[in-house]
Amino acid sequence: MKLYDGGRAPNPRRVRIFLAEKGVSVPLVPVDMGNLEHRGETITRLNPLQRLPVLELDDGTVIAESVAICRYFEALHPEPALFGRGALSTACVEMWQRRVEFGLFMAVAAAFRHLHPAMKTWEVPQIPEWGEANKVKALEFLAFLDRELAGRPFIAGDHFTIADITGLVAVQFMKPAHIELPQDLDHVRRWYDEVAARPSASA
Amino acid sequence: MKLYDGGRAPNPRRVRIFLAEKGVSVPLVPVDMGNLEHRGETITRLNPLQRLPVLELDDGTVIAESVAICRYFEALHPEPALFGRGALSTACVEMWQRRVEFGLFMAVAAAFRHLHPAMKTWEVPQIPEWGEANKVKALEFLAFLDRELAGRPFIAGDHFTIADITGLVAVQFMKPAHIELPQDLDHVRRWYDEVAARPSASA
Ligand SMILES: N[C@@H](CCC(=O)N[C@@H](CS)C(=O)NCC(=O)O)C(=O)O
Ligand SMILES: N[C@@H](CCC(=O)N[C@@H](CS)C(=O)NCC(=O)O)C(=O)O
Repeated sequence: MKLYDGGRAPNPRRVRIFLAEKGVSVPLVPVDMGNLEHRGETITRLNPLQRLPVLELDDGTVIAESVAICRYFEALHPEPALFGRGALSTACVEMWQRRVEFGLFMAVAAAFRHLHPAMKTWEVPQIPEWGEANKVKALEFLAFLDRELAGRPFIAGDHFTIADITGLVAVQFMKPAHIELPQDLDHVRRWYDEVAARPSASA
Repeated sequence: MKLYDGGRAPNPRRVRIFLAEKGVSVPLVPVDMGNLEHRGETITRLNPLQRLPVLELDDGTVIAESVAICRYFEALHPEPALFGRGALSTACVEMWQRRVEFGLFMAVAAAFRHLHPAMKTWEVPQIPEWGEANKVKALEFLAFLDRELAGRPFIAGDHFTIADITGLVAVQFMKPAHIELPQDLDHVRRWYDEVAARPSASA
């Protein structure tokens, strides 16, 4: 199999961190997004939506969507469990994965895409007012997350999960999106320092 | 357990359709969203994000997020499988569930929330330009989906899945969002007529 990878872009990074946590290594095919190579023939054939990451299996089957790729590897390599175990914990991880993806990850991405000059050809039309509104949404979500993290070590509970990966990548993506992590969010900062120090975070 | 339900709102509806497909009945607690009851004390305590649906278990455990609630019931009642079976099919369903949720469902929701006068207190700030941009995104996604559905009966393959539920609810949500389903999308229309005729669609 081959993982078409987008370097520093946040969605490909989620999958690389996931694989590092699993201790699984998959051959990467680097795609030069800066040169819009993800809009070229190869990626368009695999994923008409022209987004990365994309996993191609040996028989040609394609799995796009970061979290779908992660779920595939979760099924192949169940340990350590990063999507929960059993009905309730699985649901809880899914709830938090979605909350963090929609409330933080997508808000930061929208701020970046609608405000950064480099995104003019990526996000059409760029709507700066929507970018600014999403900075506010991201900060509101972080305040909510801070209250939640007061009571537990990781986003979805006692264990590191896919929700922490989405959260970690989102917080690091705040830098290019020009959103500052508020000083007073002690619990988010404690959580962030911990997950950012894991070996997987350099993947 | 109790399912806090939001009537005609699309996310609560996804869960009701899912339960109908499973043949599972769960006591509903109607929440009057028109009167902003979802911002009241009860829902805020259960889900500080003040969104519906919310599932409350008998021991007080709360599961928010439509798809997380569906996954919980999938684990309790595995048949019929609506999230796939086995590593590859599970990943494929997840890929399509996400594609349809982000490319269609969220685009239609954004068009509705940013353009409809009734949403002024729900979506702050309302940005009509972003609403219009999302009408275009929804139509682009439907054109892509039409090409895909030329080759198979359901969105994720040969079986009805959660991706079809998200798609069905999104297409029906196009009406209040003032987006017309283009006449020439024959495969989407064939798929839509089929899924909308299932008994679960009236849930
Ligand atoms: N929902 C998709 C999003 C994928 C996505 O948007 N990837 C970005 C890179 S982080 C991309 O390919 N952008 C290309 C573009 O916008 O043209 C996932 O989870 O994989
Ligand atoms: N991602 C959530 C979205 C829930 C959501 O936004 N629900 C809408 C009803 S369809 C809501 O509660 N809106 C209230 C508001 O925006 O104030 C899910 O999948 O359940």
